Amino acid sequence: MKKKAVILFSGGLDSTTCLALAKSEGYDCYALSFDYGQRHNSELNAARKIAKKSNVMQHEVISLSIGQLGGSSLTDKTQTIKDHDDNHVGIPSTYVPARNTIMLSIALGWAEIINAEAIFIGVSSIDYSGYPDCRPEYISKFNELVDLATKKGVEGHVLSIKTPLINLSKADTIKLGDSLGVDYSQTISCYKATDDGLACGKCDSCALRRKGFDEAKLPDTTRYI
Amino acid sequence: MKKKAVILFSGGLDSTTCLALAKSEGYDCYALSFDYGQRHNSELNAARKIAKKSNVMQHEVISLSIGQLGGSSLTDKTQTIKDHDDNHVGIPSTYVPARNTIMLSIALGWAEIINAEAIFIGVSSIDYSGYPDCRPEYISKFNELVDLATKKGVEGHVLSIKTPLINLSKADTIKLGDSLGVDYSQTISCYKATDDGLACGKCDSCALRRKGFDEAKLPDTTRYI
Repeated sequence: MKKKAVILFSGGLDSTTCLALAKSEGYDCYALSFDYGQRHNSELNAARKIAKKSNVMQHEVISLSIGQLGGSSLTDKTQTIKDHDDNHVGIPSTYVPARNTIMLSIALGWAEIINAEAIFIGVSSIDYSGYPDCRPEYISKFNELVDLATKKGVEGHVLSIKTPLINLSKADTIKLGDSLGVDYSQTISCYKATDDGLACGKCDSCALRRKGFDEAKLPDTTRYI
Repeated sequence: MKKKAVILFSGGLDSTTCLALAKSEGYDCYALSFDYGQRHNSELNAARKIAKKSNVMQHEVISLSIGQLGGSSLTDKTQTIKDHDDNHVGIPSTYVPARNTIMLSIALGWAEIINAEAIFIGVSSIDYSGYPDCRPEYISKFNELVDLATKKGVEGHVLSIKTPLINLSKADTIKLGDSLGVDYSQTISCYKATDDGLACGKCDSCALRRKGFDEAKLPDTTRYI
């Protein structure tokens, strides 16, 4: 039987690269997306399309109403998402508290149910160094938790969190995905993407992505407004 | 300003005791419940009533569609929940994989948003020793994760997971709650509770609860069918 992996899959650039990588490593892939009130719902549509095209074994979109707790401009429609500003210091308003911990926990539950041996998450400690839950020491601690958190972990079943992009810049990730044949025109990173999946080109996420293509010296196939 | 706590609050016997305890310790309480497709939705109604009566600062019910991942008779309506059987060995079918990790993660997100310094969870390692995520070593590891997972944790803000029932039997928990004035007739533990909140008296959860009142030598005020 082939080994199984749960892929935290937003339909964005990073997680689509992770999915392609997991496939290339021989995993049967189970894609997991979240509808948590993020504004860019077209991301979920992209996720559905890419998952289907990538022949994943299963794709689940979990509804999770954490937006009602507040704390992020990404889920609070009364807040404005600002355009990218090179001089901005600190955590951006789009930060969703404990998001990676929440998503990894749900992935852990699914991994236990389907007997997966890996969970892929496309975090990078290079581009988002301000996010605590993107750092190697955080992931390493979550891996320790996994061994204690589930029946299978306690019984010695090996399940580990894989972060293949953690030391890659956006440009390196794009080069990796390009070598794996990823079609980035289908992926959506923009915080304010239109319903048709067009990117604004101005938010933090667009700025980072555009710079990545630039530095990778690859054509930016993002569909902008 | 008073110290704040997030209480994982199902409306059951244990979490209601936790809420009463946190209040008695001087916390402003923020109750957090989940609608994750559990069958006993009357539990959520009980949670709403008790939270209101207890004057919590805020009560949030998070929708979380993890039932679609399968793995538990508690969320899968095609499975039957069996009556309690003293001879049953192993993890019961009502086990929801990684549930405590998932709920603690979401509580962690809220705690960061509201600046809480404690999260209360009513797990016991005595009555449910088969559940890996009810053991002290699991909780201790999650506490280590908390320090790495959030911006505030990294900055040294103290937030800790409190498990006041972890070494208590159900009888001890009931005695504790009784001393704090908890009205257990309002709490629902039954896996098959009716819409009106009546307990079946036969499932694992009812059996454990009934035994608890028995051993505590306190009248069982549970409303049975």
